[in-house]
Amino acid sequence: MATDAAMASGEVHAAILVIGDEILSGRTKDRNIGHICEVLTAMGIDVREVRVVPDLEDEIVGALNALRGRYAYVFTTGGIGPTHDDITADSVARAFGVPIDVDERAVAMMRQRYADVELTPARLRMARIPAGAELIDNTVSFAPGFMLDNVIVMAGVPKIMQAMLDAVAPRLRGGTPMLSQTRQLGCKEGDIAEALAAVQEEHGETLIGSYPGYSEERGYFTSIVVRARQPDRLDAAVADVERLIARHAERSS
Amino acid sequence: MATDAAMASGEVHAAILVIGDEILSGRTKDRNIGHICEVLTAMGIDVREVRVVPDLEDEIVGALNALRGRYAYVFTTGGIGPTHDDITADSVARAFGVPIDVDERAVAMMRQRYADVELTPARLRMARIPAGAELIDNTVSFAPGFMLDNVIVMAGVPKIMQAMLDAVAPRLRGGTPMLSQTRQLGCKEGDIAEALAAVQEEHGETLIGSYPGYSEERGYFTSIVVRARQPDRLDAAVADVERLIARHAERSS
Repeated sequence: MATDAAMASGEVHAAILVIGDEILSGRTKDRNIGHICEVLTAMGIDVREVRVVPDLEDEIVGALNALRGRYAYVFTTGGIGPTHDDITADSVARAFGVPIDVDERAVAMMRQRYADVELTPARLRMARIPAGAELIDNTVSFAPGFMLDNVIVMAGVPKIMQAMLDAVAPRLRGGTPMLSQTRQLGCKEGDIAEALAAVQEEHGETLIGSYPGYSEERGYFTSIVVRARQPDRLDAAVADVERLIARHAERSS
Repeated sequence: MATDAAMASGEVHAAILVIGDEILSGRTKDRNIGHICEVLTAMGIDVREVRVVPDLEDEIVGALNALRGRYAYVFTTGGIGPTHDDITADSVARAFGVPIDVDERAVAMMRQRYADVELTPARLRMARIPAGAELIDNTVSFAPGFMLDNVIVMAGVPKIMQAMLDAVAPRLRGGTPMLSQTRQLGCKEGDIAEALAAVQEEHGETLIGSYPGYSEERGYFTSIVVRARQPDRLDAAVADVERLIARHAERSS
């Protein structure tokens, strides 16, 4: 299995599943994907796939089952509020084939945080947690997230999601962090593409990305991002990128 | 097939495939998904799924083949530049099982736009277009996008992507646009969740979404978004939402 091979090499792979009609309609612009990717990358967990699906149980269950078998972790955002369109917890229970009911630990957590708020049936809906899940503390608002096996279920509101990600992070197994170095040079990508391809060829296990940029001040520029888990491999590839940049500067002057 | 049923009801479904390691590492924050979703929604095309995959041919081909059979259109962003990590065009050709080569129409387009820029082998790489594809004009920079069958291939740089989306839009078949009305009220979602669920129950074919909000000035508030393709259905559901809001205001005063 891909996952086993990845783990043996110090890699831990993850996926993100964003749940919500409001993202797909363009009404709400997602701000969670970028944040989760940054935090996980720093922990040595590589996000390998993201999916956004609507508030439809079949779609959520299908995506969950496709992703949770393939990656070490799946992080979901959205759909854990008190209203009829919040169906993430029930979808996770169905994907795992486990029962779901009001969880007394979640109720206790909610009572502790908001002693004065009435626990209406709608609010108790937020305490519905699939059997076997561990709760994730919500230090910002009302209802907890949860982790069931390798699936981490978080809120969609960015501040709440960020708090939940911080709360669950210590329970996750990180990998060897990916190291990264960026070099820039003042030309179009096409001017150095062949030389850069040769550097990538030479350093097969190092990831070399090239990204075009433009600013009024600088005109066209190119960012070369070199990534590797082993410092010596990173250094060797960066040295070759720097030689490429020096050669290009000489030729252009 | 789901697509046929959807089309018969005036619905046109689409997916977005974002291609790029830089998004998954968190280094670059995607700004294309929200824009594409907004533009397509206005055209009556519903985005039903988004995926983000790394710069790996197997991943791109797998996602393309999963999505292009399922949706009326698939919009890709990223990976059409001149460097070795730009493998989208080749992946599309492989997904469709068609040959790919330097396309004379693309070369002509590039020469016309930048008569003074040398067409190096790397730049000619940007003119590699799968057989049978129609070009999409790039009014911002160098190389064209393309449309092959129901797959629309665009750049990753937001300004270029936006220009390509505008260029290809007249060729797309839009559906009956989804109409939308939003009403807000100054309470937590949990306070009106049951009443709102009853409204949704009553208006089965209207989509009613509920989104929590918080601001320093207003405190907690809730946005209720009602969506339907038929104006009369929309009006009827909005009227019931307004009655719910009036009842809630009465009770709270």
